[in-house]
Amino acid sequence: MSKIAVVFHSGYGHTQRMAEAVAAGAGSVASTELIAIDAEGNITDAAWATLAGADAIVMGSPTYMGSVSWQFKKFADASSKIWFGMGWKDKVAAGFTNSASMNGDKHSTLHYLFTLSQQHGMLWVGTGMMPANSKAAERDALNYLGSSAGAMAQTPSDAGVNEMLTGDLETAKQFGVRVASMAARLNK
Amino acid sequence: MSKIAVVFHSGYGHTQRMAEAVAAGAGSVASTELIAIDAEGNITDAAWATLAGADAIVMGSPTYMGSVSWQFKKFADASSKIWFGMGWKDKVAAGFTNSASMNGDKHSTLHYLFTLSQQHGMLWVGTGMMPANSKAAERDALNYLGSSAGAMAQTPSDAGVNEMLTGDLETAKQFGVRVASMAARLNK
Amino acid sequence: MSKIAVVFHSGYGHTQRMAEAVAAGAGSVASTELIAIDAEGNITDAAWATLAGADAIVMGSPTYMGSVSWQFKKFADASSKIWFGMGWKDKVAAGFTNSASMNGDKHSTLHYLFTLSQQHGMLWVGTGMMPANSKAAERDALNYLGSSAGAMAQTPSDAGVNEMLTGDLETAKQFGVRVASMAARLNK
Amino acid sequence: MSKIAVVFHSGYGHTQRMAEAVAAGAGSVASTELIAIDAEGNITDAAWATLAGADAIVMGSPTYMGSVSWQFKKFADASSKIWFGMGWKDKVAAGFTNSASMNGDKHSTLHYLFTLSQQHGMLWVGTGMMPANSKAAERDALNYLGSSAGAMAQTPSDAGVNEMLTGDLETAKQFGVRVASMAARLNK
Repeated sequence: MSKIAVVFHSGYGHTQRMAEAVAAGAGSVASTELIAIDAEGNITDAAWATLAGADAIVMGSPTYMGSVSWQFKKFADASSKIWFGMGWKDKVAAGFTNSASMNGDKHSTLHYLFTLSQQHGMLWVGTGMMPANSKAAERDALNYLGSSAGAMAQTPSDAGVNEMLTGDLETAKQFGVRVASMAARLNK
Repeated sequence: MSKIAVVFHSGYGHTQRMAEAVAAGAGSVASTELIAIDAEGNITDAAWATLAGADAIVMGSPTYMGSVSWQFKKFADASSKIWFGMGWKDKVAAGFTNSASMNGDKHSTLHYLFTLSQQHGMLWVGTGMMPANSKAAERDALNYLGSSAGAMAQTPSDAGVNEMLTGDLETAKQFGVRVASMAARLNK
Repeated sequence: MSKIAVVFHSGYGHTQRMAEAVAAGAGSVASTELIAIDAEGNITDAAWATLAGADAIVMGSPTYMGSVSWQFKKFADASSKIWFGMGWKDKVAAGFTNSASMNGDKHSTLHYLFTLSQQHGMLWVGTGMMPANSKAAERDALNYLGSSAGAMAQTPSDAGVNEMLTGDLETAKQFGVRVASMAARLNK
Repeated sequence: MSKIAVVFHSGYGHTQRMAEAVAAGAGSVASTELIAIDAEGNITDAAWATLAGADAIVMGSPTYMGSVSWQFKKFADASSKIWFGMGWKDKVAAGFTNSASMNGDKHSTLHYLFTLSQQHGMLWVGTGMMPANSKAAERDALNYLGSSAGAMAQTPSDAGVNEMLTGDLETAKQFGVRVASMAARLNK
């Protein structure tokens, strides 16, 4: 059975809920573990060990001021120790983000997560989903935002964690299924 | 009076309508000319002369397969002749795009237009607008999509030119005002 | 045996030589075919069929005015027909580029190729190589330019095809080996 | 006289030396102040006041793991307080970075700094320099790396601060002159 690690930072709980949806999807086909980066940008030694043993690492962060949160970036910078030995080479990588605007700079966040994954020599997998963008498309459709490089959620600036959009969370879940399936395919 | 050129490619008329909105805004404070890149990616010699004399060049393209259309790119490649002599150096630059998805890869298109402008030594100006992203925000609000680097419009894949969103067009118009105002400020 | 297609546009022959190096590497472990996009941005129906049957598609373009050439973009836009049916979903994707400057905007070209691959639902594989960037590093070292997302070559603006750097070509070749090996791993 | 603020984070002193070169250039035509982001990602209240009063803000960071350092990102995230009130709107923005590889992901860092500046509604100015990329070009030529969006320096991974390349530092200095001149032009 493949092992999936979902490592994320969440400032107010929205990205955490999204991470849980990704993990729920991945968990349906693989052994899956959630790793929360704390408010100081740190994770435990046990979490680093989990990442070392994972077949796929899914990275998540809110989009703050045009990219990942500084706490996520601190985690990324700390991963330079692993990079020196190419410790994550050939693992599957994927990414997701939440922000308040429909567009905003979520694409920038996903492109950063991709850039990080490439330094580590990982294989990137995106949503593989067509967008829901016809006139009849409803806000709760799968991939309503139309993202390819990774999963996106949009939660209004004044909406609580329990007000996140059902479609975005289901998109995150299906994305988790896809990442875990790809890890299984690579490791059979 | 400043001179603004709005150069764009439009495949099905949506980006053209957006270009007209940008030009309407710019035209309220500056002498403004629209330049359409044709279906083969060409513009006339007169259009090249207009660009050479402009204080600001606003570039627009639909987002096709993750970036500007090939016709726009052909125009960009042809601008290498001007680049050799830094003919557009210190002009104001700005960009806009339309696509079918809320997010999609519109950000990628704007980042390309920015990259092009930087090779030409131009000054980039974005929307300067806050996003409309609270729970109360309506689809026709100014900058509902939440774009900073340039103006974005989202038109469903099966929506005609006359079905474009009023808010997106008004955003494009206000963006035109901003670009022309900045050109005026630079050239006073 | 896996099937690898290397599809590229070359303006003056440098990117073609790089494509041949990638294909030489890939060809050492998989059945490999080169597809040249012509000066009008077209490929033959037979070439489209080759792409449809490939396990991995490696995309190459010179960096012109900050991104892929318009001919490559015309090919990318034409691939929207395949995108509608997700015909390339789950194939391996990778990219390479050549330009005259050490840095320039080659990163922008690779990010575009990545963005295109994600719309198609493909898996992206980069160089997986550490950079050669110590004081002792020589210009002909593997990955002297230090690229992760794909293979890069740098050829001075006035250097002919036969003056390309040996190290860049060897990097391209090793990159071809990596892409083909990953395709084999996915398809075993 | 225009006021320029150069705000940067430096991990080992290289980016600081680059910041000093930018400031030396800017200082030749404008009142210029250097602001160092500390090892915890903080700046003083006085520094925030300096930024509030500046006509141009030049942002610098090493490229770590594919983007700005986490300390710089913490500063960027803290700037969200200013963003809420659009406090930096219409200021000039510019960016620079240093890393060990010729290419690496320096472009990604500059694109992030641009993205941040656009959220703040700022005007971006790049190097406006042609690249030095002929066969005769020497490593110490102005803009040898060939960067347009901002200034780049490349310092080998094992090179000390005193071993930085003269050409890169002179490029940074000329870049400082350009940014300050543009600020003066905007504010006359």
